[in-house]
Amino acid sequence: MKHRVTFFPGNVAVDVNNNETILDAAVAADVYIDASCGGEGTCGKCRVIIEGPHNGSVDKNGYVLACQTSPKGELSVFVPTRDESRVGKIHGSYSNAIFKVDKPLVENILAEMRAPSLDDNLADLERLKCAIDQPDVEISLSALQSLPDILRSSNWCINTAVAHTGNSREIIDIFSSKHDKNIGVAIDIGTTTVALELIDLNTGAVIAQASDYNRQIIVGEDVLARIAYVEERGPKRLQDLIIKTINQLIENIRFVDEDRVGSNQVAHDIRALSVGANPAMLSLFLGLDPTNIRYEPYIPVAHEPPIFRASDIGLNIHPNSPIYCIPGRAAYVGGDVTADILLSGMHLKNELSLLIDVGTNGEVVLGNREWMVTCSTSAGPAFEGGDISCGMRAMSGAIDSVEISGGDLQINTIDSQDPVGICGSGLIDLVAQMFKDNWIDRKGNIVIEDSERLYYHDEVASALIHSGENTISINEDDIANILRTKAAIYAGCSVLLSSMGMEFNDVEKIYIAGGFGSHINIDNAQLIGLLPDLPRERFEFIGNGSLGGARLCLISADARKAAHSIFESMTYLDLSSSPAFFDQYSSALFLPHTDLDQFPSIIRRMK
Amino acid sequence: MKHRVTFFPGNVAVDVNNNETILDAAVAADVYIDASCGGEGTCGKCRVIIEGPHNGSVDKNGYVLACQTSPKGELSVFVPTRDESRVGKIHGSYSNAIFKVDKPLVENILAEMRAPSLDDNLADLERLKCAIDQPDVEISLSALQSLPDILRSSNWCINTAVAHTGNSREIIDIFSSKHDKNIGVAIDIGTTTVALELIDLNTGAVIAQASDYNRQIIVGEDVLARIAYVEERGPKRLQDLIIKTINQLIENIRFVDEDRVGSNQVAHDIRALSVGANPAMLSLFLGLDPTNIRYEPYIPVAHEPPIFRASDIGLNIHPNSPIYCIPGRAAYVGGDVTADILLSGMHLKNELSLLIDVGTNGEVVLGNREWMVTCSTSAGPAFEGGDISCGMRAMSGAIDSVEISGGDLQINTIDSQDPVGICGSGLIDLVAQMFKDNWIDRKGNIVIEDSERLYYHDEVASALIHSGENTISINEDDIANILRTKAAIYAGCSVLLSSMGMEFNDVEKIYIAGGFGSHINIDNAQLIGLLPDLPRERFEFIGNGSLGGARLCLISADARKAAHSIFESMTYLDLSSSPAFFDQYSSALFLPHTDLDQFPSIIRRMK
Ligand code: FES
Ligand code: FES
Repeated sequence: MKHRVTFFPGNVAVDVNNNETILDAAVAADVYIDASCGGEGTCGKCRVIIEGPHNGSVDKNGYVLACQTSPKGELSVFVPTRDESRVGKIHGSYSNAIFKVDKPLVENILAEMRAPSLDDNLADLERLKCAIDQPDVEISLSALQSLPDILRSSNWCINTAVAHTGNSREIIDIFSSKHDKNIGVAIDIGTTTVALELIDLNTGAVIAQASDYNRQIIVGEDVLARIAYVEERGPKRLQDLIIKTINQLIENIRFVDEDRVGSNQVAHDIRALSVGANPAMLSLFLGLDPTNIRYEPYIPVAHEPPIFRASDIGLNIHPNSPIYCIPGRAAYVGGDVTADILLSGMHLKNELSLLIDVGTNGEVVLGNREWMVTCSTSAGPAFEGGDISCGMRAMSGAIDSVEISGGDLQINTIDSQDPVGICGSGLIDLVAQMFKDNWIDRKGNIVIEDSERLYYHDEVASALIHSGENTISINEDDIANILRTKAAIYAGCSVLLSSMGMEFNDVEKIYIAGGFGSHINIDNAQLIGLLPDLPRERFEFIGNGSLGGARLCLISADARKAAHSIFESMTYLDLSSSPAFFDQYSSALFLPHTDLDQFPSIIRRMK
Repeated sequence: MKHRVTFFPGNVAVDVNNNETILDAAVAADVYIDASCGGEGTCGKCRVIIEGPHNGSVDKNGYVLACQTSPKGELSVFVPTRDESRVGKIHGSYSNAIFKVDKPLVENILAEMRAPSLDDNLADLERLKCAIDQPDVEISLSALQSLPDILRSSNWCINTAVAHTGNSREIIDIFSSKHDKNIGVAIDIGTTTVALELIDLNTGAVIAQASDYNRQIIVGEDVLARIAYVEERGPKRLQDLIIKTINQLIENIRFVDEDRVGSNQVAHDIRALSVGANPAMLSLFLGLDPTNIRYEPYIPVAHEPPIFRASDIGLNIHPNSPIYCIPGRAAYVGGDVTADILLSGMHLKNELSLLIDVGTNGEVVLGNREWMVTCSTSAGPAFEGGDISCGMRAMSGAIDSVEISGGDLQINTIDSQDPVGICGSGLIDLVAQMFKDNWIDRKGNIVIEDSERLYYHDEVASALIHSGENTISINEDDIANILRTKAAIYAGCSVLLSSMGMEFNDVEKIYIAGGFGSHINIDNAQLIGLLPDLPRERFEFIGNGSLGGARLCLISADARKAAHSIFESMTYLDLSSSPAFFDQYSSALFLPHTDLDQFPSIIRRMK
């Protein structure tokens, strides 16, 4: 027996069988419900509000777990909170003045020409090529089809949109000289989060920003879970999910910024897209099978994919838009890292720099203008709110900073909303402050004896952080996850340095990239041993480097050239079977580290 | 009230209104019926056989005129003869040994590589580029999507199909190394006739040939009629008709040659297409509006269109196939003429050559390796059987040669079939022999007094050529059409020569191009003043030069390069407002010419 389930907001209906859950229905209907535990009923994140007959158990706030509830008749489902604020914030718009707008991926070039005559009977196309002084330029069939009419109706003065692609240039559209809009999209496709910016390609200005969860989360939280899905069923469904995520973001951004960027015409005026992504995400975006990056010797389909068109992959922007993908070095060091480097400018400087991208994979780059080595560590999603019982992305209501002093705990939330969960920067603060105030020991075990704070849930010790409409706490499993994450990143840095016979003190600059980048409290990050014990002035936050690098590549041919040489010149260090990494990792699982000599100023502070 | 009309062969059904004709139904159903007079009821070519209630008048052979007959109930229509032998003959496969297979438009390149390892972890795409030693090669998304699987299932040895396009090369498909089929299509899109060849791109060998009427004939016989149609309704319908013509030809050829070229796999193994066509036909093929070539200053959309893909225009071959169009010089001197020149080789020689392409437009080129001038004349379709009461294309049953001696008329038909009509070479013979035997005078008036031969139809004097199942005759209107056609071509040659201060005797070689080219009797062509009075050995037939040139461009990058320089170096002479041309034309309307001094040997022969 089938039941109709309708989701709100959105009013999307789907028919499901008696024994299917609301989460199944949501997957079928392409409605996003956070299901971090994959429908096991353990993470509690799939809470929804329902109207109608069902078999679920309703909690005191009126929620049921979508993954544990089946419809017993026609049902309406409201997917709350997170979906309401889809247009998220992008923190840390790091400004890099190296690249100016110069040969953006698509450029508007004005073409003025004389009308033809019997003595000057050059054909329309060749006349246009001549007017823009580009004899070898190519042209899309649709642009060529509209050429005779537009030339004559615009009195031989038109505007062309010329794509600067790999080996050639192509006129992808033409229009009246009065029309000079030219918009591009820079996008960071993260495993967890997708962030994008609309860029005015004439000026390089950011017109609008938006971010959202990657809808692929429906089939699994991390890269390996996604690849496992592809191995069974092919890449089509996951490509579909990421394309839908992006199309929806563009739709939202257009709606939000209707006044500023136009409205319906906007989709057609968006004519270029530049992508920073890790290799698995990039593969799925292009419909490529990433399976081989899961198995030794970890081979991606392409380091540097060619430039495809929006219509090739179903993006709802101008169909001829070139899709530029920033090249990446290895299976787990992708275009997102190349983009970080590009944005930091470390590839142009003599000083020795260390770049750390704190994402679900923690990627580290060491080097300067002469050389670069890189590695990747499976840091885990803790700092993006994954695998943490009250974790969440950095959005409205997230606790983003914590201070504990003399047993008293102070929190701050994004937008000063009632707290909903804790985001990455809040987790770093929390663990550091708990450690400093002796709520936890060096192994991360909870040792506080305050009976109001400490409690046990399923025999796991937990510390209460906030009680109110939402109860927010952290348990020892959470802390262990955080320690594993920070240990992986710190160990990656250590191994990279020792592979070059160097140590932390040789590093003159440390760039921190990542969606939450600019919000980390460095003192606290050092307290937990995530960041090395170096002077404050050596650290620099570059925010979402993948997005920032994508923006640079969108507006500048020099940036695209630089991205190519960065990826080509990087040396990749594979840590997957490195005993040195395993040693370093084990040592780093303590607070701040087994080897306290590496954190002299922390020791001083703790005393 | 609607009636169902079903056409055979093909079993295509369509519903039409009471007052619509069978010809209307055929147009709606995309069934080809020859309708040279455009449905006026005057040409008699739309004869069909019908079963069922109708309002037409049936002749003694059981035919009705489709354009004069409406259904009065459900009806079956048989479209006879011409449709049965759709796969026509292509005469004169001129062999030009200048170009060998060298960088065909698409080339199979074997790629052998080492399997990756931890130490050699290049991505699949970059590994492939390296194996074929082409770091800048591009790749289609579909090929890239299949790459990881095929590499691994073929043990790192695969075959690639690399397209040599304008500024770049692209891998358009990949497959197991065992698969080495690589087929291209060369095609001549004439206003009246479409001819194509399947070419083995590995060897350059012709696998199969086919030709058919251009289905655009449904909306008008000549270029101007087609353009007039586009002005009213846009180019979509005509593009559709030519694409259907080509798709059907490829379908037929595959069927006919199933044993030799495979069968279902064939369409996918056809991976390149090279086109010779006049500018109007080329425009319509690409869906471009050719309207502006109709009006002063006669501007085509493009001299040299970029390389598009088969999927852009709906051709049923490999969707990524590059579509190469031979560049053309002017609104009425297109890629077909460039192809003629290429095939003749006149652009490589020191001797002064004159090239005549006898089609619906008569194009003429004069020059050598140093320089070339060209012009076009509206010769009319007479030599392709158009505008001639018993005219037809050179196919089974066409009278292709005629001899008259002492009042006795001998005919020969193609394939020795019962005569159905007269094709171009037969018409030249016929008029020449009638003139020689004094059946007509120098103005083309019928002066024979043989009462069995001479008769009047609607007050127009006609001469009976053959009586039998089909009555075949020629009338004074037909002869006037032929004289206009030959006069236009001869005048074009004269004007071109005098523009350079030369005369016919300076010409060392005359190349004759055109579908019927190799079948013309030169003596007879001189007798009617179509060809100049020069020694036999100066003439050379190159057959369908447009098709031959397209074949060369398909198999050789040098040929494509040569085509580009030929088109760029040609000087175009516009005859449309030339008083010199009008003078020459008027003088040439006589048999053989007003100025008999130009035909001294003819005068000797006539005496
Ligand atoms: S997905 Fe429902 S509880 Fe985890
Ligand atoms: S088309 Fe029917 S008679 Fe001409």
